[in-house]
Amino acid sequence: MELTTLCYLERGDEYLMLHRISKKNDINKDKWIGIGGHFEGQESPEECLLREAKEETGLTLTSYHFRGLVTFLAGDRPAEYMCLYTADSWEGKLTDCREGKLEWIPKRHLKELNCWEGDKIFLKLLREKAPFFSLKLRYEGDELREAVLDGRPLSLPLGPEWDQ
Amino acid sequence: MELTTLCYLERGDEYLMLHRISKKNDINKDKWIGIGGHFEGQESPEECLLREAKEETGLTLTSYHFRGLVTFLAGDRPAEYMCLYTADSWEGKLTDCREGKLEWIPKRHLKELNCWEGDKIFLKLLREKAPFFSLKLRYEGDELREAVLDGRPLSLPLGPEWDQ
Repeated sequence: MELTTLCYLERGDEYLMLHRISKKNDINKDKWIGIGGHFEGQESPEECLLREAKEETGLTLTSYHFRGLVTFLAGDRPAEYMCLYTADSWEGKLTDCREGKLEWIPKRHLKELNCWEGDKIFLKLLREKAPFFSLKLRYEGDELREAVLDGRPLSLPLGPEWDQ
Repeated sequence: MELTTLCYLERGDEYLMLHRISKKNDINKDKWIGIGGHFEGQESPEECLLREAKEETGLTLTSYHFRGLVTFLAGDRPAEYMCLYTADSWEGKLTDCREGKLEWIPKRHLKELNCWEGDKIFLKLLREKAPFFSLKLRYEGDELREAVLDGRPLSLPLGPEWDQ
């Protein structure tokens, strides 16, 4: 199994998005996602979050919130458990990222980007300031085959209620 | 790394506690803790929770809440990430548990049991209905050497404010 952090930096009505165009053999290849990465050693979620934010953006997060846990399943890959954060304050200067291109994107434009289908679910929950949630997403290739929110299956395909 | 669930079943003013006296080479040997265990295959936290609850108690949980994530570090062991739940409704009949002795314990008596020192912290947060939290606990042997709540270090040794 894999344990990762995924963080959306919020600046007013924008999120800092990472276009994953640089890494080879990247499950997220060409997708737009938040920043983050794998836990190392004995890191806590917050230690991983702060290190990854620094490595990928040059920024030191000073205010962040643990918003949910996403169980990400794709085919036969080991399960990935993503600790999902938003951050609204930081110090430092934004730098380039080795793993792709960083860009501030207005939230209303996210639906035009190549994102994972299930991201709509947690992006809506983030937008609506939902309390902490656990979301299971199972993909075959790029297709979302199963979505379970706090133990309750959601109807697929996702309806327009999940759009921005 | 290891990923586990830990759940406290609540019945009025009591928790269902497990006295870990049966397993050999158990990091929790002779301690009292909640029920739970390791994730298997591609399980989500809720799937692991329901399976472990059924295996260890015979009960099928029908109402449960994800309360926090505990990063449990003990010496050089791989980090263990415990998804912490409480449950307040279930179906079925309580059975014996292979891993120890199950007992309903009034919450006010928990302090008299042999529990991990840091459990006081999350038991207080559960009692006070704190929003979702991330708690890092680092032990050397039985001694709590580091406790970090949502990224903020707590003073050690723990003061009386953490007692029941």
